[in-house]
Amino acid sequence: QPPGLPLAPCRSFSNSKIQVELDESSGVAMMKFKSPPVNSLSLEFLTEFSISLEKLENNRACRGVIITSTIPKIFSSGLDITEMCGKSIEHYTEFWRAVQEMWLRLYGSSMVTVAAINGSSPAGGCLIALSCDYRIMAENPKFSIGLNEAQLGIVAPFWFKDTFVNVVGHRVAERSLQLGSLHPAPEAHKLGLVDELVPEEKLMEKAAAVMAQWLALPDHARQLTKTMMRKAVLDRLVAHREEDIKNFISFVSKESIQKSLRMYMEMLKKRK
Amino acid sequence: QPPGLPLAPCRSFSNSKIQVELDESSGVAMMKFKSPPVNSLSLEFLTEFSISLEKLENNRACRGVIITSTIPKIFSSGLDITEMCGKSIEHYTEFWRAVQEMWLRLYGSSMVTVAAINGSSPAGGCLIALSCDYRIMAENPKFSIGLNEAQLGIVAPFWFKDTFVNVVGHRVAERSLQLGSLHPAPEAHKLGLVDELVPEEKLMEKAAAVMAQWLALPDHARQLTKTMMRKAVLDRLVAHREEDIKNFISFVSKESIQKSLRMYMEMLKKRK
Amino acid sequence: QPPGLPLAPCRSFSNSKIQVELDESSGVAMMKFKSPPVNSLSLEFLTEFSISLEKLENNRACRGVIITSTIPKIFSSGLDITEMCGKSIEHYTEFWRAVQEMWLRLYGSSMVTVAAINGSSPAGGCLIALSCDYRIMAENPKFSIGLNEAQLGIVAPFWFKDTFVNVVGHRVAERSLQLGSLHPAPEAHKLGLVDELVPEEKLMEKAAAVMAQWLALPDHARQLTKTMMRKAVLDRLVAHREEDIKNFISFVSKESIQKSLRMYMEMLKKRK
Repeated sequence: QPPGLPLAPCRSFSNSKIQVELDESSGVAMMKFKSPPVNSLSLEFLTEFSISLEKLENNRACRGVIITSTIPKIFSSGLDITEMCGKSIEHYTEFWRAVQEMWLRLYGSSMVTVAAINGSSPAGGCLIALSCDYRIMAENPKFSIGLNEAQLGIVAPFWFKDTFVNVVGHRVAERSLQLGSLHPAPEAHKLGLVDELVPEEKLMEKAAAVMAQWLALPDHARQLTKTMMRKAVLDRLVAHREEDIKNFISFVSKESIQKSLRMYMEMLKKRK
Repeated sequence: QPPGLPLAPCRSFSNSKIQVELDESSGVAMMKFKSPPVNSLSLEFLTEFSISLEKLENNRACRGVIITSTIPKIFSSGLDITEMCGKSIEHYTEFWRAVQEMWLRLYGSSMVTVAAINGSSPAGGCLIALSCDYRIMAENPKFSIGLNEAQLGIVAPFWFKDTFVNVVGHRVAERSLQLGSLHPAPEAHKLGLVDELVPEEKLMEKAAAVMAQWLALPDHARQLTKTMMRKAVLDRLVAHREEDIKNFISFVSKESIQKSLRMYMEMLKKRK
Repeated sequence: QPPGLPLAPCRSFSNSKIQVELDESSGVAMMKFKSPPVNSLSLEFLTEFSISLEKLENNRACRGVIITSTIPKIFSSGLDITEMCGKSIEHYTEFWRAVQEMWLRLYGSSMVTVAAINGSSPAGGCLIALSCDYRIMAENPKFSIGLNEAQLGIVAPFWFKDTFVNVVGHRVAERSLQLGSLHPAPEAHKLGLVDELVPEEKLMEKAAAVMAQWLALPDHARQLTKTMMRKAVLDRLVAHREEDIKNFISFVSKESIQKSLRMYMEMLKKRK
């Protein structure tokens, strides 16, 4: 290597929606959501997310992933509503399968996964955070997180619910899901929905420190332990995957739901 | 309407044991237990409770129910022991079916249910509170709540236990059930057995505010979410209902149990 | 009885590894681990433990057991690694069956069981504490407790995990098991892994007081309640016992595991 050139221990591949940088010396990949305006989970985003996870999973040099956002104030706004509005059955099928695929890969990942939540994280964004091994959130009370589907007249799928119950327990999940609550960071921490709050400027440093702590353990035993803890909930979706797709289609095809999604999109447009 | 007469937005039906007032403008019904001396759950009380819940459930104007007591210092003292003492098998069967029916209706209600616990609430009284969506208790440390069956030498049925575990988790439920603990309000709050404490004079105001917050959500998604959270536990009793009745009869028919219930009743009489 | 001689209300039987004293007046037995240097759970220790529990269980005079250690700073160091190193299949089978047997007896005991944790309690030592009805720990931050198997490259068996989840819930168990955490006493208390901390000199006094509180309840209802709470998890091991033994043998027979256990033993020897 010629003098003067910086060391290049990182391999990065950037697609349109997510930037991935793997530091091979530490074995840690950074996944940065960079899909303006709000990192919504479109079919394209979800596909890219699943492929990126698969690549890292198959790369022996990668042992852990830190997930964060490059968009100010937003981690991810959740499922892209435009994918659910006025599209064909085929499209709904493909879209929902991609949502399932993303969750199966992330919740079932054998890598250590840390969410560095540097902005608000409703609905599907919250699911991504819940599916990681550890959640650190910027301690800004303006940032909120939660499965707020009920607010939109939508029911969170059973595997969103299972993931949520595993993190916060039955009582908190029942109330939060029924109310479609978006919890400001301090409240989310109190409920156990996030594990730790840090000042925003220390978020990445803290995430790296937590990751180092987790990677100090031998991989094999940790991976088997993770599987033991999560298998029942993962298996439940695998067993009911087609049924879950049918449910989604029958739900999203209802004229009343289409109407309320269109109204919601109009409202979002006007906000801009 | 002639001047001087109050507006009458409420429909009320009062039976002997429970007073029900539905405010059709808000969609909220008040159910007030008014069965002296201690709102014990007799066959008559339970039947009236189930019928009242059914009426409200079938009334489109009703979306939520606040449950409270008109008896000072007592929410409900639980199952009426006289119904379990020296009666026929037929009576025990009818009584236990009524206890099951009440719980199936309340825990499975599609309405928002808020318990405004303005007094002590042992055993079956605690079950009623646990079966609501939200529990607010007067912050008087003299008021206590818990499934104290073990104190009387009785075992709480499995569905009391399931409901309890869903609220406070396994460890707290295991200890509290084994000890038959009656938790003073502040302790009950700390354990998560009640969601909130307020000064007694603010209890109804708070219950109304909480109800308004829950009713701000669209009903349909909230109801489906509630079903998703509670179905497993409800289905378990439905599947084992006759077996559960048989268990109760075989238990309550034991001479040793009859004796200890009679002694307990004597003690209660002397207290008066 | 001649004057000057102390009253002798206790029956004690002492074997090589555990001292057992039953106070027939109170119905409480003390079990004191006294197997230097660290009360490790050898085949001999486990066998003696199971037999002692069985004797007490069958003794009508005994209603409760307090478990503690006579070794300073150590409650129990967990499974004896020498039993897993360079032995025959027959030996591994016998050893693992003894581990299962101990847990089935302790977690399923109809007696009240209180752990008076007067020292560190990793891995199998933690399992013993988790299997009791109540855990009191000396509030010394140098004493730690946890299922740290992952630190040694080992996976805790599913029934260790089930017992742990019943005590601390899913989220805490998932993180703690993956990290193989040993929690200092104050942290263990905060997580709910132990129920209470007291100064070391008050530990036995407190354990006796807690036991008296539990024994104030009638045995029968308490026992049925305990069974109701623990049966699902006990049944799971009973149903998969042979499979669990096979898993252990196949795991412990791996050359990589043998190597890392040998290295760990070398390290322990050097420490002395």
